[in-house]
Amino acid sequence: MSVGAETPCPEAFVALAERLADAAGAVVRPYFRQPIDVAQKPDQSPVTIADREAESAMRALIAAAYPEHGMVGEEHGAERSSAEYVWILDPIDGTKRFISGHPQFGTLIGLLHNGAPILGVIDMPMMGERWIGAAGRSTTHGHADGTGPSRVRSCADVGHAVLYATSPHMFPGDDFQSFERVRRRARQPMYGGECYAYGLLASGFVDLVVEATMGVYDYLPLVPVVVGAGGTITDWQGAALGLGSDGRVIAAGDRRCHTAALDLLKASG
Amino acid sequence: MSVGAETPCPEAFVALAERLADAAGAVVRPYFRQPIDVAQKPDQSPVTIADREAESAMRALIAAAYPEHGMVGEEHGAERSSAEYVWILDPIDGTKRFISGHPQFGTLIGLLHNGAPILGVIDMPMMGERWIGAAGRSTTHGHADGTGPSRVRSCADVGHAVLYATSPHMFPGDDFQSFERVRRRARQPMYGGECYAYGLLASGFVDLVVEATMGVYDYLPLVPVVVGAGGTITDWQGAALGLGSDGRVIAAGDRRCHTAALDLLKASG
Repeated sequence: MSVGAETPCPEAFVALAERLADAAGAVVRPYFRQPIDVAQKPDQSPVTIADREAESAMRALIAAAYPEHGMVGEEHGAERSSAEYVWILDPIDGTKRFISGHPQFGTLIGLLHNGAPILGVIDMPMMGERWIGAAGRSTTHGHADGTGPSRVRSCADVGHAVLYATSPHMFPGDDFQSFERVRRRARQPMYGGECYAYGLLASGFVDLVVEATMGVYDYLPLVPVVVGAGGTITDWQGAALGLGSDGRVIAAGDRRCHTAALDLLKASG
Repeated sequence: MSVGAETPCPEAFVALAERLADAAGAVVRPYFRQPIDVAQKPDQSPVTIADREAESAMRALIAAAYPEHGMVGEEHGAERSSAEYVWILDPIDGTKRFISGHPQFGTLIGLLHNGAPILGVIDMPMMGERWIGAAGRSTTHGHADGTGPSRVRSCADVGHAVLYATSPHMFPGDDFQSFERVRRRARQPMYGGECYAYGLLASGFVDLVVEATMGVYDYLPLVPVVVGAGGTITDWQGAALGLGSDGRVIAAGDRRCHTAALDLLKASG
């Protein structure tokens, strides 16, 4: 299955996305495990010079190649966000891991065409892995041994699922009990995934990811990766993810598992 | 600070520990992300042929070099466990990560001399990192760029601490509320660490690790790594860890943080 195969993503955009990921990684790697100032953003999340410089490097490349394209970045805000093509940039997804010396952080790059995600990259600069999903082609997974196809695996129900969520504290209010219904049913619940969990799902090692309080930078780039690998990713109502989604995300490799988990999320009590 | 500097660990044992880690990694790596049968052990934890073969490879090397030494391994049990020297072997710490295609799993190797840990290795075969702690020398950290010293950082209080625990579900009964007192106070609580969190602590990126329901294979190899880097690792009463400990573990880079976290663990209500 490919993403919106009726409108393939131009290969030039995929090539640019790869250059963006390369550029962000080149900025971030030298800062890894080095002394670095950590500032708090208004939402209390941490940010560093590595986040800011990596996003600036990506924005400069986009502006040079396609000055008419829009950009929405986690650190430097929105420009031309009503353009036909809008890039979504999260230079370091997992900044908390990054500042704790843990290599499990990623650069997320998305491209929207008239508001719909048509291209997504999950790049892990310190772990040497990169997933690319794009409309009209299947998701690929690049790693130390080369690049190959990325395909989800079958998993008929939540009771058989390896489940990931970054933290149990990411679910506000009643969302926590909704998550707990899924977590208690899952065969193997795991924490600490960040964007990497969606890559592992796209490659058929993880069955289910359930998260909340995510920003557009966190979830929009994931959509083409998961869908292009044969998976399903929506909000907790089962609706497609877009700029206006509420930050609740559920991804599954197998549609049956997605449906069953959605039922658990929506159940009362 | 070094581990029990009055009785240095013989260098030949350190060299053997490195060969054990090399051998375990050579067994495990080809199984990573390949189809593999997963069996459930009596405690419901998963085990694979990779765990078993890696431990067998290590046991064969020990038996060839020091047939009089004892061995206690997670998968193949105890032999001569009352010997003067006893090796503690966990071929794959983090088997759940391993079977979910996640490279954050480690081989743990410890050596007890008359019951006291004098040598410990945390080896991450897919992440290319290795911490070695041994009595009479300082902890080292090997990684892609070479091998260097591993030193804890200062952190005066839990309120400033980056805290790791593998999962909030590892704390049975009242232990969960004890953990929660520490977690709520910590500046940055993180999940999903497994043995890697102790390596990051030894290298000064993480301040505190609080865990429970750990086996001797999980915690004894960590002791020389943490202590030899200048840190403190005990049970939740502040007592030294040994074969008879209860599986509750607290490690801190800074002794002040250790004391403050112990007080929170012991507080009532």
